[in-house]
Amino acid sequence: MSGLLRTLAEHRCFGGVQRFLEHDAHEIGLPMRLSVFLPPQAALAKVPALIYLAGLTCNEETFAVKGGAQRLAAEFGIALIAPDTSPRGAGVEGEASDWDFGVAASFYLDATQAPWAPHWRMESYLVRELLPLLGERLPIDAERLGIFGHSMGGHGALTLALRHPGSFKSVSAFAPVCAPAQCAWGRKAFTGYLGGDTAGWQAHDASRLMQRQQAAPFPEGILIDQGLEDKFLADQLHPHLFEAACREVAQPLTLRRHIGYDHGYYFVQSFMADHLKHHQRILFQPS
Amino acid sequence: MSGLLRTLAEHRCFGGVQRFLEHDAHEIGLPMRLSVFLPPQAALAKVPALIYLAGLTCNEETFAVKGGAQRLAAEFGIALIAPDTSPRGAGVEGEASDWDFGVAASFYLDATQAPWAPHWRMESYLVRELLPLLGERLPIDAERLGIFGHSMGGHGALTLALRHPGSFKSVSAFAPVCAPAQCAWGRKAFTGYLGGDTAGWQAHDASRLMQRQQAAPFPEGILIDQGLEDKFLADQLHPHLFEAACREVAQPLTLRRHIGYDHGYYFVQSFMADHLKHHQRILFQPS
Repeated sequence: MSGLLRTLAEHRCFGGVQRFLEHDAHEIGLPMRLSVFLPPQAALAKVPALIYLAGLTCNEETFAVKGGAQRLAAEFGIALIAPDTSPRGAGVEGEASDWDFGVAASFYLDATQAPWAPHWRMESYLVRELLPLLGERLPIDAERLGIFGHSMGGHGALTLALRHPGSFKSVSAFAPVCAPAQCAWGRKAFTGYLGGDTAGWQAHDASRLMQRQQAAPFPEGILIDQGLEDKFLADQLHPHLFEAACREVAQPLTLRRHIGYDHGYYFVQSFMADHLKHHQRILFQPS
Repeated sequence: MSGLLRTLAEHRCFGGVQRFLEHDAHEIGLPMRLSVFLPPQAALAKVPALIYLAGLTCNEETFAVKGGAQRLAAEFGIALIAPDTSPRGAGVEGEASDWDFGVAASFYLDATQAPWAPHWRMESYLVRELLPLLGERLPIDAERLGIFGHSMGGHGALTLALRHPGSFKSVSAFAPVCAPAQCAWGRKAFTGYLGGDTAGWQAHDASRLMQRQQAAPFPEGILIDQGLEDKFLADQLHPHLFEAACREVAQPLTLRRHIGYDHGYYFVQSFMADHLKHHQRILFQPS
């Protein structure tokens, strides 16, 4: 039953609770895991939540273990939700043979191509199935959601925020893949999941999506942090293209380039507090 | 060469740097790994440092990844040093077959029994070799060291602090094994490493060591945090015995028992800031 969230583990943390859950995801056709941090305030009333999408090779535990977000989330009264990065156990031939495609590399879209299309439906899973479930089954206010992510998950956060207006009030990213239609990771993923017609790719490319906006979709601003010693920066991430797209449509963007920082979670945790403050500022505005 | 610290990886983190190092440890007779976090202040002058000893099954990465200590260490200007939890690669038969003995289970003492004695010399390694090396090879003030740890590493922190007066100015622990001579983990380790004569065990049992003090060895106080949902509390940890020993010798002890918290790093990180503040208060006192 899709609505049943089975608890695999739970740990008291900063006065709240860090849970690891599993449920039968009907959009995916397989069990999916996620981590959920509920702050102490969730014992009294529904709280806003941040959806965090992790990067290539990660899973639902990565953010909970390495992100260092629970401390401020507990202080602010914000829940943290981190889904897994792809379906697992589908049995698609070769699904786990590449680190940048297949298992742990969903790119958070709905695949249209065989053999991926039946299970690799992460966009529908996240937006149509998981978000409603959070509001129904957990003490979460589904009207006050933000989304953020890292690398492939930064791509996921930016594209899902732009493709589903109204679903997320706030968005930010760490070292996101900003223009996947123009980098090797993205071209490989889009070819495999969406097919060779590049016209269809544009609807899943954050920079293209931003260029197509009629007005700034997030007038409160978008926050992106990027390390300048990130070995993927030059070839895969292209934040300057997203920056240019934001400028075209007058989308306020704070893109911070940090000397010395690389692509990993020592970088991510260093700026986590600023991301939580960014989302808090927007999610707790009087509506 | 023992003095040469080879850098295996380094990551900018909270304005400082998280390094993973390896060196040929002559006390151990094998290469040993450690993690070192240097705060931004270490670029200008030598800084105080905290030695963190991890628990069973852990390694030199555990604290760096899961402890969440770098943020405040960067703010306070304190270095963080986490050695590995045992020799590795000695080739002792069965060294890795038990999770609570052998590899990743050194109990931070010098083994006297075959086949462990030649390599399992963690106490001599830490106190005689690593501490001097820190002051010589890193921007660390070896006169201002604190020590803390978790579980087996809490035992290590308490016993090394008590066995080497003057080496550490401050000490604290998360869920430490407080009376190893009286629990199954400790009895197994002490029998294997020290032999069956229990008289010799007492010098490595924190509660016994404290009882034998003539005066409070840490007049500034010792901090211990313990979760009450810790599944090892009743049988392995015995904080009440250490509490009683501290009372006997008038050693100030803050032993906090936390409802709902378990034995893992979601517990440890929840109280990490209080431990850093405890050490900072003592390490930054005018001498």
